[in-house]
Amino acid sequence: MAKELTSRATDYSQWYNDLVIKADMAESSAVRGCMVIKPYGYSIWEKMQASLDKMFKDTGHTNAYFPLFIPKSFFSKEASHVEGFAKECAVVTHYRLKNDPNGKGVVVDSEAKLEEELIVRPTSETIIWNTYKGWIQSYRDLPILVNQWANVVRWEMRTRLFLRTAEFLWQEGHTAHATREEAEIETRKMIDVYADFAENYMAIPVIKGHKSANERFAGALDTLCIEALMQDGKALQCGTSHFLGQNFAKAFDVKFQSKQGVQEYVWATSWGVSTRLIGALIMAHSDDNGLVLPPKLAPLQVVIVPIYKTDEEFKKVAEKANEIFSMLKANGISVKFDDRDTHKPGWKFNEYELKGVPVRIAIGPKDLENGTVEIARRDTLEKKSYAATEILDTVKFLLGDIQKNLYNKALAYRKANTTEVNSWEEFKKVLEEKGGFISAHWDGTSETEEKIKEETKATIRVIPFDQKKEGGKCVYTGKPSEGRVLFAKAY
Amino acid sequence: MAKELTSRATDYSQWYNDLVIKADMAESSAVRGCMVIKPYGYSIWEKMQASLDKMFKDTGHTNAYFPLFIPKSFFSKEASHVEGFAKECAVVTHYRLKNDPNGKGVVVDSEAKLEEELIVRPTSETIIWNTYKGWIQSYRDLPILVNQWANVVRWEMRTRLFLRTAEFLWQEGHTAHATREEAEIETRKMIDVYADFAENYMAIPVIKGHKSANERFAGALDTLCIEALMQDGKALQCGTSHFLGQNFAKAFDVKFQSKQGVQEYVWATSWGVSTRLIGALIMAHSDDNGLVLPPKLAPLQVVIVPIYKTDEEFKKVAEKANEIFSMLKANGISVKFDDRDTHKPGWKFNEYELKGVPVRIAIGPKDLENGTVEIARRDTLEKKSYAATEILDTVKFLLGDIQKNLYNKALAYRKANTTEVNSWEEFKKVLEEKGGFISAHWDGTSETEEKIKEETKATIRVIPFDQKKEGGKCVYTGKPSEGRVLFAKAY
Repeated sequence: MAKELTSRATDYSQWYNDLVIKADMAESSAVRGCMVIKPYGYSIWEKMQASLDKMFKDTGHTNAYFPLFIPKSFFSKEASHVEGFAKECAVVTHYRLKNDPNGKGVVVDSEAKLEEELIVRPTSETIIWNTYKGWIQSYRDLPILVNQWANVVRWEMRTRLFLRTAEFLWQEGHTAHATREEAEIETRKMIDVYADFAENYMAIPVIKGHKSANERFAGALDTLCIEALMQDGKALQCGTSHFLGQNFAKAFDVKFQSKQGVQEYVWATSWGVSTRLIGALIMAHSDDNGLVLPPKLAPLQVVIVPIYKTDEEFKKVAEKANEIFSMLKANGISVKFDDRDTHKPGWKFNEYELKGVPVRIAIGPKDLENGTVEIARRDTLEKKSYAATEILDTVKFLLGDIQKNLYNKALAYRKANTTEVNSWEEFKKVLEEKGGFISAHWDGTSETEEKIKEETKATIRVIPFDQKKEGGKCVYTGKPSEGRVLFAKAY
Repeated sequence: MAKELTSRATDYSQWYNDLVIKADMAESSAVRGCMVIKPYGYSIWEKMQASLDKMFKDTGHTNAYFPLFIPKSFFSKEASHVEGFAKECAVVTHYRLKNDPNGKGVVVDSEAKLEEELIVRPTSETIIWNTYKGWIQSYRDLPILVNQWANVVRWEMRTRLFLRTAEFLWQEGHTAHATREEAEIETRKMIDVYADFAENYMAIPVIKGHKSANERFAGALDTLCIEALMQDGKALQCGTSHFLGQNFAKAFDVKFQSKQGVQEYVWATSWGVSTRLIGALIMAHSDDNGLVLPPKLAPLQVVIVPIYKTDEEFKKVAEKANEIFSMLKANGISVKFDDRDTHKPGWKFNEYELKGVPVRIAIGPKDLENGTVEIARRDTLEKKSYAATEILDTVKFLLGDIQKNLYNKALAYRKANTTEVNSWEEFKKVLEEKGGFISAHWDGTSETEEKIKEETKATIRVIPFDQKKEGGKCVYTGKPSEGRVLFAKAY
């Protein structure tokens, strides 16, 4: 039993770090800021990828692959993009090493200097729009609905496993359209796909809406986002979808001939989610005993642990356990029978709690006598005895019920931690003492948002789509406002 | 009809380049040596990935992810590895750009120089074995059976789409074992998996065997490979599996405590295939009309093309076509009904021939009258009329038959182009006039292989597992030999 997690109450941040390491999700590597995603963590990413990829394809998108490197000059082509992205990044300057003439090892060969430096992609708008120029001549070539699964690098100084790493894995959709309206519809469609995924797979309720200008993607006219609340009262952005207008088409001179025979610039969107979602998944549901995973994304949904003393007992128990294993597997449930004799049942119980396996079945000699098994659910830690004949129905019910329960619990938490405030004193008090989302009036200016951020570290997380039109006064300046926005401290 | 491929007979190399571009598989990018894999090409890679990934998992492997960057010093730790890999590679030296003080655009910030340069991984043995050091203490931690799907970069001066590019996509398995025997079994198991995939999915017959010492992976004690023959008589290595002995364990000091309580170095394997396989797939089967794809890897297996003159006719034909579409789809066949009115049937026929869609169904007013459809197969270009009631059976039969036929055709080609030679004159003559595999005696020395390569450009592609023990004389030196090996010019 190697658990010993820091409790959330003691130190939420330490609890998260402990959990990521102890549950074998990921670890830091020898390269500053880059993580190793271990098999257990990676299998969650694979499940996320499979679900999202299907959703992308069902909405008409196909995958492609673009270069890892971007010529330095590409970043300067879109004015605001260069400000946002071409700063903290990995720069390739040479293409050869040679044996160190003064000793052992290898050194950079100064004669193999690139004429133009290459940037390891922090995002791919520039290289993709440079490519699209060759793909688009006529309205018949549109829309282009392409997605890429890839690694990207942003040279972060302060990193945390999954939440902020120099290299991370993500997908980035890049679409090209003939009209503004079509691009806007696409932007909205994809944030809806992300919200669907967050709520129905990750069991995390999210608020959909617009980013304020301050928080917008560098080069976008509008950024849509989904925002979730973590258990420490901080917000986490789970996905963004950008309406890029004609900015990249103009930067890379991508025009098409319209049906009317007119040359027009192409309209663009881009949208992405990353391995950061694994961080969100961990923080949204897990507890002081370890991970709590929604059944739809759990690498393993059910584990069967045998209870026995003698070899004789093990044989009988194993026979029944194998039967249950086969039955569950045949029903499409991912299940493992842990028959290792190197660990005691108590150790295994702890281990699978730590790993967040949604359902645990224990079976021992007494169960064989009584025709029962003990079934425990990870979310509530409840355990109960069931007739062996009820196993399949019970497991199916529990997998569905845990998925729902996690969502409802997170939703209740978010409701309890969303506070309407109407004065600056109240704003600061709630932020300090309670945290969570603060719903407040704002005068709509970047300056005010900036000042609020400086004073409190809170930012506008989202201007919700379902914002109520309601006259009010900005909580900071007292100037008129037309509706409330959500503030929070954020990851 | 935008076909106009160079014929294979005119210029095989140009035919390949034309085909990759015109069939929308890939194109060169703005970054020297890096390709853009277009949606049609990428969907073949997705199918390859899905099949291989399942085979890896069925043999007990799991996926994980390791950093893109490797500290320069890691390469020097394994002596032969540094010779093979740490030379032509992308070197990251800086982590920041800044606005150019002398003008517009951005320049590298000289103050943001890395203390130690980072190499974009050309292969990941070093970073992975550095990581495994933390994962392995006892025999209980072994074996580790991990695979990674990733991009890698090798700074090639002469590149060709799919076959040799600076950046390419691949998978690399990296396993750790307690005994030499177990690692050797794993090495062999994975080359068998690759051969199974090549033959049963790609429909490409391969020869399994060992590489000669000259062609071995840098750092391996033994390299196993699968070798295939392309239609121009050149060989192409389709996959390799390396027995690494304890070289990387020693370089990174990875020891485990054995059951007997002794500290021992861990045994290693690594194995990989890459997007190069797409190049092999294209070259093995395609013809002067375009791609020919095995049904198991074709992005689209069946296309339905309507034949009509009037709107009235289209309506009736479309009704029947939609019926066929739904029936095939319901039977798990990937199918498209091309109802575009912007292109004529003849244009579409050419287009789908170019794209290598295995089965084409054409349906027009006369077919409706007669209760028939016309079905064409891409491999032989045969077309025939079938009763509408026979469609499903016919399509199923054809998909299986095309898969088999492609394999058999490639096998017959390889047999016809594998020549036993017994003198140096014969060797040169066959290589010059016929090409293909040359089966010849060799004295077993690297020097002789080197000389043969210098004189003819042919190398030993593989020492087959099923090599006959047969006394003979080296075709070059006349020294004694115990069996024949296969020489060829290679991609």
